[in-house]
Amino acid sequence: MNGQKRLRDYFVNIGRLETGKYNSITDVEGVTVGHVTLSNKEMQTGVTAILPHQGNLFKEKLIASSHVINGFGKTMGTIQINELGTLETPIILTNTLSIGTAADALIEYMLELNPEIGLTTGTVNPIICECNDMLLNDVRARFVKKEHIFQAISNASPVFKEGTVGAGTGMLCYSLKGGIGTSSRMMQMEHGTYTMGVLVLSNFGILSDLMINGKPIGKELRDAILTSRQEEKDKGSIIIIAATDLPVSERQLNRIIKRSVTGLSRTGSIITTGSGEVVIGFSTATKIPHEKTSHCLSFSMIHEEDMDLAFRAIGEATEEAVLNSLVTATHVVGRDGNERPAFKDLIEEFNISLT
Amino acid sequence: MNGQKRLRDYFVNIGRLETGKYNSITDVEGVTVGHVTLSNKEMQTGVTAILPHQGNLFKEKLIASSHVINGFGKTMGTIQINELGTLETPIILTNTLSIGTAADALIEYMLELNPEIGLTTGTVNPIICECNDMLLNDVRARFVKKEHIFQAISNASPVFKEGTVGAGTGMLCYSLKGGIGTSSRMMQMEHGTYTMGVLVLSNFGILSDLMINGKPIGKELRDAILTSRQEEKDKGSIIIIAATDLPVSERQLNRIIKRSVTGLSRTGSIITTGSGEVVIGFSTATKIPHEKTSHCLSFSMIHEEDMDLAFRAIGEATEEAVLNSLVTATHVVGRDGNERPAFKDLIEEFNISLT
Amino acid sequence: MNGQKRLRDYFVNIGRLETGKYNSITDVEGVTVGHVTLSNKEMQTGVTAILPHQGNLFKEKLIASSHVINGFGKTMGTIQINELGTLETPIILTNTLSIGTAADALIEYMLELNPEIGLTTGTVNPIICECNDMLLNDVRARFVKKEHIFQAISNASPVFKEGTVGAGTGMLCYSLKGGIGTSSRMMQMEHGTYTMGVLVLSNFGILSDLMINGKPIGKELRDAILTSRQEEKDKGSIIIIAATDLPVSERQLNRIIKRSVTGLSRTGSIITTGSGEVVIGFSTATKIPHEKTSHCLSFSMIHEEDMDLAFRAIGEATEEAVLNSLVTATHVVGRDGNERPAFKDLIEEFNISLT
Amino acid sequence: MNGQKRLRDYFVNIGRLETGKYNSITDVEGVTVGHVTLSNKEMQTGVTAILPHQGNLFKEKLIASSHVINGFGKTMGTIQINELGTLETPIILTNTLSIGTAADALIEYMLELNPEIGLTTGTVNPIICECNDMLLNDVRARFVKKEHIFQAISNASPVFKEGTVGAGTGMLCYSLKGGIGTSSRMMQMEHGTYTMGVLVLSNFGILSDLMINGKPIGKELRDAILTSRQEEKDKGSIIIIAATDLPVSERQLNRIIKRSVTGLSRTGSIITTGSGEVVIGFSTATKIPHEKTSHCLSFSMIHEEDMDLAFRAIGEATEEAVLNSLVTATHVVGRDGNERPAFKDLIEEFNISLT
Repeated sequence: MNGQKRLRDYFVNIGRLETGKYNSITDVEGVTVGHVTLSNKEMQTGVTAILPHQGNLFKEKLIASSHVINGFGKTMGTIQINELGTLETPIILTNTLSIGTAADALIEYMLELNPEIGLTTGTVNPIICECNDMLLNDVRARFVKKEHIFQAISNASPVFKEGTVGAGTGMLCYSLKGGIGTSSRMMQMEHGTYTMGVLVLSNFGILSDLMINGKPIGKELRDAILTSRQEEKDKGSIIIIAATDLPVSERQLNRIIKRSVTGLSRTGSIITTGSGEVVIGFSTATKIPHEKTSHCLSFSMIHEEDMDLAFRAIGEATEEAVLNSLVTATHVVGRDGNERPAFKDLIEEFNISLT
Repeated sequence: MNGQKRLRDYFVNIGRLETGKYNSITDVEGVTVGHVTLSNKEMQTGVTAILPHQGNLFKEKLIASSHVINGFGKTMGTIQINELGTLETPIILTNTLSIGTAADALIEYMLELNPEIGLTTGTVNPIICECNDMLLNDVRARFVKKEHIFQAISNASPVFKEGTVGAGTGMLCYSLKGGIGTSSRMMQMEHGTYTMGVLVLSNFGILSDLMINGKPIGKELRDAILTSRQEEKDKGSIIIIAATDLPVSERQLNRIIKRSVTGLSRTGSIITTGSGEVVIGFSTATKIPHEKTSHCLSFSMIHEEDMDLAFRAIGEATEEAVLNSLVTATHVVGRDGNERPAFKDLIEEFNISLT
Repeated sequence: MNGQKRLRDYFVNIGRLETGKYNSITDVEGVTVGHVTLSNKEMQTGVTAILPHQGNLFKEKLIASSHVINGFGKTMGTIQINELGTLETPIILTNTLSIGTAADALIEYMLELNPEIGLTTGTVNPIICECNDMLLNDVRARFVKKEHIFQAISNASPVFKEGTVGAGTGMLCYSLKGGIGTSSRMMQMEHGTYTMGVLVLSNFGILSDLMINGKPIGKELRDAILTSRQEEKDKGSIIIIAATDLPVSERQLNRIIKRSVTGLSRTGSIITTGSGEVVIGFSTATKIPHEKTSHCLSFSMIHEEDMDLAFRAIGEATEEAVLNSLVTATHVVGRDGNERPAFKDLIEEFNISLT
Repeated sequence: MNGQKRLRDYFVNIGRLETGKYNSITDVEGVTVGHVTLSNKEMQTGVTAILPHQGNLFKEKLIASSHVINGFGKTMGTIQINELGTLETPIILTNTLSIGTAADALIEYMLELNPEIGLTTGTVNPIICECNDMLLNDVRARFVKKEHIFQAISNASPVFKEGTVGAGTGMLCYSLKGGIGTSSRMMQMEHGTYTMGVLVLSNFGILSDLMINGKPIGKELRDAILTSRQEEKDKGSIIIIAATDLPVSERQLNRIIKRSVTGLSRTGSIITTGSGEVVIGFSTATKIPHEKTSHCLSFSMIHEEDMDLAFRAIGEATEEAVLNSLVTATHVVGRDGNERPAFKDLIEEFNISLT
């Protein structure tokens, strides 16, 4: 979708379901993604914004759910998502020590759009997710400023880059360069055709665990390149954002997003202790009005027997999104000369077949 | 409703909302309750069955939720309620060591009603709740047999007894005799009038903690009667069943049933460690078909701003149901001559005013 | 402890356990509390910092736990507390829209104290709790700046004010002025004497629900003063911080802090929908080293049978802390002339007896 | 260990850690496993008992934890495990509709061993796990009787069979015959060498999803054999029992057992909707006395940085246990002539290489 060489361009197809048009989270109607990339020597970080729909999210909330795969992380806003089952702001991804700035900026953005917040109606619940890019980025410097959040939001578009970009600028994956990746799947049901889109911010894993479609590529690669470097004890994290237009209840959505771990596991993750692995999911099928209505809300949800297709879709899309983040990332030299190679360079250098 | 002297007959009114017609869980249309009482010397136990609606529950499930206030208990069936958000069997209450028998009986009952279970469709999730009546009952003898469960189900009726009856036969409350109690509240909303009904199986607390509508009756009473007896270290449990016809999602229902703890606390409970305190709630507003549908399910739920009334209703109804279990219970002498006085006898003997 | 007239000065004693020396969270050895109060016309807000011990918290973490009573709130940092069971920063309380600023400031504070964060060791998990003070405070103006957080931390002391102070400056309670309150209880066990301390930031409830030690003071008061004003639909929230020196595991601590709801309920709360009600607890009994040890950690925990005393202690201390926040608060006129009366002024004006 | 041809006999080694002596859950000192197999025409079911240690479990409890991967299941006893963090009975596995009988039998067994239960001390929390074997077994007939549970317990031994045995008699796996499987891993830490053992009752998956060490064997096999049969829509479940001698807190154990899903996913599971997938874990490192002690309990736990090895161990052991259940199972013809082929027969028939 974005001019980059992606996993399928290496002839690897994950799973059995069809992808959406762009094989991207933005295949879900209304979803857009924007990046701000801050890359210069010891500054290797950035911001990625996901806009769940193009209207006023605060006034027309979406059914949402969160799931913590591993909680060594600082993601903000999940308490309210869990309680109310709704999302009312864009989702911001950035580095761990910039969450305060990002929250403050997102609050400001929401206040401007909604002059009644804090005056005639209550407050707003900003969703900030993070991974720690301290190996390549001088995370203590907190390079991310409020304007970067505004900019990422205003950059949002159905077409966006993957890899070393936005919040993914300084992230690692399986000891290589990681970052942003995305993928999608179509779900054909009796009552309609739906889309499941996943975007990941990958920042986890050690090389020897990497598997591509079941193939232990990581082990091969480690044997090839470890004459010079010792294997790193990378820990890291992953943020998984799942979007769908499937009509689901909060409970159903929670069941679906939990299954992202199947795809994650199939890339080789053992979900290490030092990682914040958090999933945020939303459905665009129903809009929940902020203002109290005088009548009951009515909405649709799929029968529980329809769920398996959604489970398969999110597993496949997560697996492919992680691998897309890996194959699209570029070589980065950052803080203190720390670096991580690009998987795509190694593929070429060592003439590795991914299939 | 049942010829017994209840809390309101002592001129105590809990809260500010109106009760339903019977001030009972059965004010929720379709709900019925049946008891089997086994009372003879060291046998002081029984079974109480709650039928959530009068149709085939397996085929037309209800939206349901469970909440564990304290988990030192053996309630069965909540894993599936939490995952699927539905109830597909009656709810059986009995003593702790009879849960196996009760589960087996309820499975048998469901198999007979639904010949396709285990043949052409999956299995069934029996809901069994329990408290420990070992002080008054020889719980090791496991007096409850399968026919008692069948009988309790077939005894189910909109009108039923409270106090020393059914599963409540051998239970205690605030060091006095406890057992079954019920209460209900009406909820007037813009879009309709709804009912919240609560039934409790009370079996917890020490006398000096008992409060009635804020009045420290327990402390007074302890001072009056403790010349002869030392205060017991009762632990016990409580099972709270909440029924409503309010249209709610599983998440909303969960929020509502969690608030039962406000009423429980106001009777004086500190929620001791050795207690199984579990709430099961269901809504009769929507029936979820067992069989897969070719279309999406559509249903109604209230706006989140309507929730406060439901929160108030369940708190009030729980508080009153506990106190009803206390004032209706009768004096029991059971195992090894262990006994618990009836609160109503003490009220008379010591000329206590509850208001 | 602080020259203010507190609940016990009105001859109201909650519960049966002895209080600590100051009847304050700071009765737990090592705990200190600091405020910054921002009060001027439409600016009615502030910051309160709780320091769990006086050493380097990042290097010597405390066993901690969080519990969400109601999740319509934006408290940050609980995901990691739940996963790792430890606390590694002071706890900051402020208004809802200042959480980003507070998080950023707390991160900065931790970075300065620990130059290895983000360089040779991982990141840090800031704990920020909030309530919404928008009625009295122009919350949109976000008056809280980073220096206020630093100042609140450096103001921390064993003796501190309650009521209209720090994060409590603009908060409400039962339609009156609320804010900061504290209380403590001593726990005599066979193996030692321990302390349970609670600090609350109260911001919830409607007047007619207020109960003081079981007495329906709120209803009386409403009848007295409502000739002129209509009852407000206050929603609000409460933050409850619990400190103890009891040796407990994370699981045990979680069981304890859940019981704070019993005390909260006894002041009259129905836990309304629009409130963020969150409890954070920590135990000072064991320090968990940040750096990996070559041996196993060894620690102590109480037998589960000892828990009831802790359950009683936290219930009593929470109830009294809420009421202390109420009786110490002073009359505030804030944003747009909005005001909330001081309970203590009404007590005098209407000659109300709290006993 | 048991004379059966296991995965490693097909030259497939999962992961990188060493196995224990028997590559079995019983490599954890003190753990034993016993089966009762009921196999005759339409009766294809049974019981498997896991004894966590050889002393009196009720008096010397083990630290334990449970985790629900998917909750369409009827596992009993997890509420109390979650609340108290301890296990006090053997674990019984059987078919879904026999849980009542199994619970009743396990209660009876515990009552006999502990005459004080229900007299001078409280009750007991039986742990019963189940999968649905209705395809091969006439599950409605409930062939399992109380004596079968007693027998399975008394059959417990360090050496036991896998595959079509005990509770696994009628279970399926990836559309083939499944059942009982086990595996173990050694964990070398600075402070000692520990063992992680896993036992599974497999009953899930469709053939085309099956992967063996990353190889899509299921897809190949389906293409080979599906001339005659259409692919089944198997749903099913998995029960995962994890035993370790690692000193861990309840929270740490919970983190560990959650990682079993990585191994499960790598065999190809998408965790379908209609499955009860539940993990029960226990650590034999610390015994918690039933009776109240006058002093605090002291125990050891690993530093959080040691966890990754345990995460890797449980993932590998779970993956291999599932595959062991598959390769050891034998062809069964059961209810109504329904049958499931043995994977080992197909391997031979189609000359499939697993490596």
